[in-house]
Amino acid sequence: MEFGTGNGYSNGNGYTNGNGHTNGNGNYNGNGHVNGNGKANGAKVVKMKPMDSELLREQGHIMVDFIADYYKNLQDSPQDFPVLSQVQPGYLRDMLPDSAPERPESLKELLDDVSKKIMPGITHWQSPSYFAYYASSTSVAGFLGEMLNAGLSVVGFTWLTSPAATELEIIVLDWLAKLLQLPDHFLSTGKGNGGGVIQGTGCEAVLVVVLAARDRILKKVGKTLLPQLVVYGSDQTHSSFRKACLIGGIHEENIRLLKTDSSTNYGMPPESLEEAISHDLAKGFIPFFICATVGTTSSAAVDPLVPLGNIAKKYGIWLHVDAAYAGNACICPEYRKFIDGIENADSFNMNAHKWLFANQTCSPLWVKDRYSLIDALKTNPEYLEFKVKVSHVHHFVTNIKEPSIYIEDLKKRYHIHVEYITKMTIRN
Amino acid sequence: MEFGTGNGYSNGNGYTNGNGHTNGNGNYNGNGHVNGNGKANGAKVVKMKPMDSELLREQGHIMVDFIADYYKNLQDSPQDFPVLSQVQPGYLRDMLPDSAPERPESLKELLDDVSKKIMPGITHWQSPSYFAYYASSTSVAGFLGEMLNAGLSVVGFTWLTSPAATELEIIVLDWLAKLLQLPDHFLSTGKGNGGGVIQGTGCEAVLVVVLAARDRILKKVGKTLLPQLVVYGSDQTHSSFRKACLIGGIHEENIRLLKTDSSTNYGMPPESLEEAISHDLAKGFIPFFICATVGTTSSAAVDPLVPLGNIAKKYGIWLHVDAAYAGNACICPEYRKFIDGIENADSFNMNAHKWLFANQTCSPLWVKDRYSLIDALKTNPEYLEFKVKVSHVHHFVTNIKEPSIYIEDLKKRYHIHVEYITKMTIRN
Repeated sequence: MEFGTGNGYSNGNGYTNGNGHTNGNGNYNGNGHVNGNGKANGAKVVKMKPMDSELLREQGHIMVDFIADYYKNLQDSPQDFPVLSQVQPGYLRDMLPDSAPERPESLKELLDDVSKKIMPGITHWQSPSYFAYYASSTSVAGFLGEMLNAGLSVVGFTWLTSPAATELEIIVLDWLAKLLQLPDHFLSTGKGNGGGVIQGTGCEAVLVVVLAARDRILKKVGKTLLPQLVVYGSDQTHSSFRKACLIGGIHEENIRLLKTDSSTNYGMPPESLEEAISHDLAKGFIPFFICATVGTTSSAAVDPLVPLGNIAKKYGIWLHVDAAYAGNACICPEYRKFIDGIENADSFNMNAHKWLFANQTCSPLWVKDRYSLIDALKTNPEYLEFKVKVSHVHHFVTNIKEPSIYIEDLKKRYHIHVEYITKMTIRN
Repeated sequence: MEFGTGNGYSNGNGYTNGNGHTNGNGNYNGNGHVNGNGKANGAKVVKMKPMDSELLREQGHIMVDFIADYYKNLQDSPQDFPVLSQVQPGYLRDMLPDSAPERPESLKELLDDVSKKIMPGITHWQSPSYFAYYASSTSVAGFLGEMLNAGLSVVGFTWLTSPAATELEIIVLDWLAKLLQLPDHFLSTGKGNGGGVIQGTGCEAVLVVVLAARDRILKKVGKTLLPQLVVYGSDQTHSSFRKACLIGGIHEENIRLLKTDSSTNYGMPPESLEEAISHDLAKGFIPFFICATVGTTSSAAVDPLVPLGNIAKKYGIWLHVDAAYAGNACICPEYRKFIDGIENADSFNMNAHKWLFANQTCSPLWVKDRYSLIDALKTNPEYLEFKVKVSHVHHFVTNIKEPSIYIEDLKKRYHIHVEYITKMTIRN
């Protein structure tokens, strides 16, 4: 692409803070401004360089300092950063123009805007005084990984579009599976057809496995029986389970959320589950999915995987273990017991963007049978076909969106963090 | 969280390249190493600071230079960067350990690893010689926006968790809608119930509107009629449309992909559509969704929105306009004609991560009736409830995943780019 450029605005230095190397050249990446009469007055044509290395260097350094200063101030002057944003709904509308600005602004102006208009609307999740949901969910390593990911701007929707993306994802998920002592059948190098794939969130993870399980059972019983399918969770199960089922066309009244109470520490009672299944079978329903949770979001309840797994096995039902909230803690040997019984699960998910210090969002999912996911979600358009045979790298196409864009930020995170993770003691 | 730290490994300088400020203090963010006998031998307890400002500053600058050098080399020594990765499937497995490394590595070691092991597996989408799919899909501004987003690590799954995230998304999507001259009913400030929301990709966008349209029609006709629902696209429509329908439980044989040929430049023939609808109605099917495309991925075909819109209106069918691939070009006045007829659409989507230089992924979606999306996809768990009334900021909960994590990177992008975007001439 090329632009005509005149000289109307191209001699200012606002855009790059005036430090010399991009002033006055009318370049897209410098401070030039393409005015309407560029071509008309015979201006020279300049090449667009969206990723100009020197502009990236200069402005990237400014941005690093901006972010580092934010964390410094958050630490040194907590009184200036109320953890919970104090703005009123609609506050921003009055501070911004009604239409997109007509002219570019300098980075300095833009960062001033961020400080004055955006910062008051930020709830400071990384503040040392933040204790809602889950605290301190990112890290310097996570941030650096995101930078590298965004900087290389890798697109990974097939193996060929950047082989490292697909391969690293698979390898690192094997590493993580080993740290969690997941059974061999969840490894891409295991004897079966298992493996891991990164989803955006636990909500996406439960959605894709509900779909995989749904299609597996419908293939057997015929798709007209969709209205007979039933699923099981507890009244502590995350709301995304219901959402996933509704997306997949499961009838709302067929979502059984079993009652829990303090007698089981709000874990799902296996007897209630088996009773519900028997009852449903007797009435002609088709039980096909159990969502067990290790650390529910609402109450940190832990469902008893061993008896639930036995029931799932007995009745041939897909057992998903949603450990999005707390599962990563099971890397610690003293907490591994909470996923004892995982051997009988068909899928397992946890969020690396919680206690593993990955940035939002990074939600590894492991499945025993990757073909169930691929069958449910594959697309094979001509423009994504390629000649290289990749079967032995276990190429997944399991995201509900085409792109799976994670690159070695994960690698970065685990290289640096693994030792800390394995040894850390989590304070109650 | 606190760690016991001994002195076994905590006096090295590997982790931060030994430049002084973090060496030898056993700090989590420095180069300390938590060994197993930390507590046993009475070591001091140090606080964990996952986002240590000075470590972030130091390592962030190193990372900026690494990325800037990559783009410099890509430009200056293209021979060292074959655009298409030349590795063989499985290449990475042999270069990495089987398990996660036990000890942290220095940033320098890690970046060496990236250069030697990851880079050969990268297909260089930002290379000036890259012409597949869509070229040069990011920019310095996009990168800086991602840095800021990752750096602040904002979580936006409700208004309260960072009001600026929700509000800025809505405002900027109004800006973009105005640039595209979308009809008033797609604006959050319009007379109706419309508005914009950012999805990850065009694939996600078509999924959420298929679900919204499905639930709208099933509410009317009863959910047992799901097997009667039919949808329409063309043989040029993106494969994600089929995938979205299958996820939503639409029967595969009810997906009508109408034949196109060179006589309509591979656009969907309105006569074929009307004929198919009449035929389906006569047989008792329920037509509920048309996916029209402006710039198909396979052939850049443009479906004729005006006649398709009239048909959709006549039969009360949801019309989605998938302009993921080419829609952003319609910001240019000379290309706006390609979305003439958008007035009769129920939803419109385009990808800002294509010609608008946003990083992957950023896919704005506008709908005429936001409640159709909210009804289909809302969740109301207790832990996401809050007391503030936000109705007048039009808070959407329309992502299929809970988090909608975009923050003012968009603002950044549009501030800087809007002038260029509106004036640019796209070379054929």
